[in-house]
Order: sequence, then structure tokens, then C-alpha cells
Amino acid sequence: MRGLPVLTLYYTPLTCALASHIALEDAGAEYVARRVDFKNAEQQSPDYLAVNPKGRVPALATPRGILTETPAILAFIAQSFPVARLAPLDDPFAFAQAQSFASYLGSTVHTNHAHRPRGYRWADEPSSLEDMKRKTTANMAACFELIEKKMFKGPWAMGDDYSFIDPYLFTLGGWLQGDGVDIARFPRVAEHSARMAERASVKKALAEEVAV
Amino acid sequence: MRGLPVLTLYYTPLTCALASHIALEDAGAEYVARRVDFKNAEQQSPDYLAVNPKGRVPALATPRGILTETPAILAFIAQSFPVARLAPLDDPFAFAQAQSFASYLGSTVHTNHAHRPRGYRWADEPSSLEDMKRKTTANMAACFELIEKKMFKGPWAMGDDYSFIDPYLFTLGGWLQGDGVDIARFPRVAEHSARMAERASVKKALAEEVAV
Repeated sequence: MRGLPVLTLYYTPLTCALASHIALEDAGAEYVARRVDFKNAEQQSPDYLAVNPKGRVPALATPRGILTETPAILAFIAQSFPVARLAPLDDPFAFAQAQSFASYLGSTVHTNHAHRPRGYRWADEPSSLEDMKRKTTANMAACFELIEKKMFKGPWAMGDDYSFIDPYLFTLGGWLQGDGVDIARFPRVAEHSARMAERASVKKALAEEVAV
Repeated sequence: MRGLPVLTLYYTPLTCALASHIALEDAGAEYVARRVDFKNAEQQSPDYLAVNPKGRVPALATPRGILTETPAILAFIAQSFPVARLAPLDDPFAFAQAQSFASYLGSTVHTNHAHRPRGYRWADEPSSLEDMKRKTTANMAACFELIEKKMFKGPWAMGDDYSFIDPYLFTLGGWLQGDGVDIARFPRVAEHSARMAERASVKKALAEEVAV
């Protein structure tokens, strides 16, 4: 008899939580994916704030407690399922390169994107929010220009080996169209995204997120 | 004869690079601290862009190549100098908790702060930049309220053991006054900051950064 799943991923469809969702599939982890209903502001409910006081997704419930923040969750999945080889765990420099990429995606790329739908986090006036929305396209394009030219090694993000950066890059690349940026401007990233979409782990996570 | 230093930290005084600077001291690393002159826009010079194409600090030059992004550099220092015990390296969950704290400091706290001096990254109109500046105080206060109440374990950020989170929290806490927030509102963070300021590693890094 298999035990009960020991991991629960709290997610909202097509948010950055998708990266952790795919990585759990890549890792072969047993887990439950628990949807958080942003439309009804469930992320601000007392029950969810007890899980994650930040009121955001993802959160990963483990037997030791809750983890938040995508870069931390991704590295945790990689370290917890070493057989899946989702990171160069025995090479601090190579691991740090992956962590650097994750940090850039989380602190710069995700944040730039967030200024379009959630500019109210940083300003109050409607004119300011419109100003931020206008600038999002150029900011996201500049980020992916840097990724395409300087960061993406190929064939996977970190080079020859698939890693936890691949689902993270795929997830944020999926936001480009909504941000007014044609991913085709970045041929290597676009090819990576298309190749990712064919992976079983990605199909499974996406199917679960878009299911009614 | 000791070898030449194998690490070079590119920093600008009192930026987030201070966290890595202190951590290098804590680790007992041999390194050179190389100042990048923001006042003369050295971070946008061809020479520096060859080091870090993002045009930001910190960057850590190692024998294997350059690392950027504070959370990645801090974890790298911890993994590279295990004797210094700057992270719970043998416990993936505890390590992930530290990484989660670092990610929050980098992607939420630092970003909220940046909207005061560098709102032009996300909007163009002077009225938008003023709007962002006005909101920075409340945003930084909310972040440190969460840190004080939910994240800081005490006596160190992650609990009984000093870790790479402590210099990072100290560094960003040092920005509160400029952001219009009195650190005394957060007694545990304030006490931590005062205790950090007495550490030899902090004094050494600060002395180097503020020296002419």
C-alpha cells in the first residue's frame, strides 16, 4: 500500500506556482495539488493566511512545515528528489548559477510582469497604474532579451542537463503574450518553450490546472 | 605563502551587496572587494557590463566564473565555506526555509524599497514616480511587520543558529530610515540589527565600504 501524499502544493492556475507544479511532476513526487481560488480572494481567507501569511501562491506543505517562494521551493524539490537530477547538487558553483537564474526570474522578471495586473501594490493613482502597464511590455522584452542572449545556455536553460530552471522559465515565458511581447523575438527561448510543452510533466500539470 | 584571493566582490557602498560582503567576512573567505562607482554610472560601463550584463551589484567573480543575485551568492558562500556554518547545509527543509527568507528579501522587500529611488524602472511620468515614493513607506512597514511577526525566529533570523539570512536582513533593515520607517516599530528586528552592528564581520565590511 502506498502512503498518503506527504506534499501539498497550493496553486492558482497559470501563476508562477506552475513551475513548482511541473517540478513536482518531474521529480516523480507524490503530492496533492490544491487550488486556491483567486477569483473569490481565497488567498486572503483566514484559512489560507494560516498556510501562507503572505496571501500568495505557491505554498508547499511538507511534513516539516510550509515553504513559500518559488526559488526556494524549486531548490527544495531538487534536493529532496536527487534521483530526478533537477539541479547539479554536488557542484556549489553550478548550483549557484541555477539559483542565480531563479532569483532573476523571481525578483526581476516576475516583478516586472506584476506591474501590469498588480501595479496597485506599488502606487495608488489610476494614471500611475496605466503608466506601469504601458511600460511592462518593454520591461519584459528587455528581460527576455537578456535571457536569450546572455543567460540561456541551451538546449536547456542551464546547458546540457534539464534542471528546475526549465519549468520556471517556461512558466514566466507563458506570460509574454499577455504582456504584449511576441516570444518569437527570442528564438532560443521560443524553441525551448515549444519543447517544454511536449513534456509529459508539463502536460500533466497544465491539464490539472486548467481542468474545471 | 598564501595564494592570491580567488574571489572578487563587486559592490557599491550600502547597497544589497553589503549582505554578501558581510557573509564573505563571516565565512573567513579570502577576497577582494572592488567598488563600482554608481555616481559615475560605472555599472553601465562596457568593462562592468562584461562582468555583469545586468549592470547591477553585487557580482562575485570566482575561478569558475561570475555569479550574480544576492540570494544565489549568499547560498554559494555558505556551501563553499561549510566550516563557517552559514546555513543548515545537510537539512534540505531548513535550507529551504533560509532560501525562502532570502527570496522574500530579494523579490519583495528589496523591490518595494527600489520604488522610492528607482521608480523609473517601472513607470515614466513624474507623477507616477511620486506616487510610488509615497507608497514605499507603507510597503516597507508591511514587509517588516510580516518579518517581525511571522518570519524572524530569534535570536537570529532563522533561530538558534546564525545564517546567511542575518547579514541580508541587517542590510535591508538599514534602508528603513531612508524609506521613512522607524525600525523601533519592530523590536525584535531592531534588537537584531543592533546586535549585528557589533559583530566584527559587520564592522569590517562597513568600514571598507564607507572608507574614502
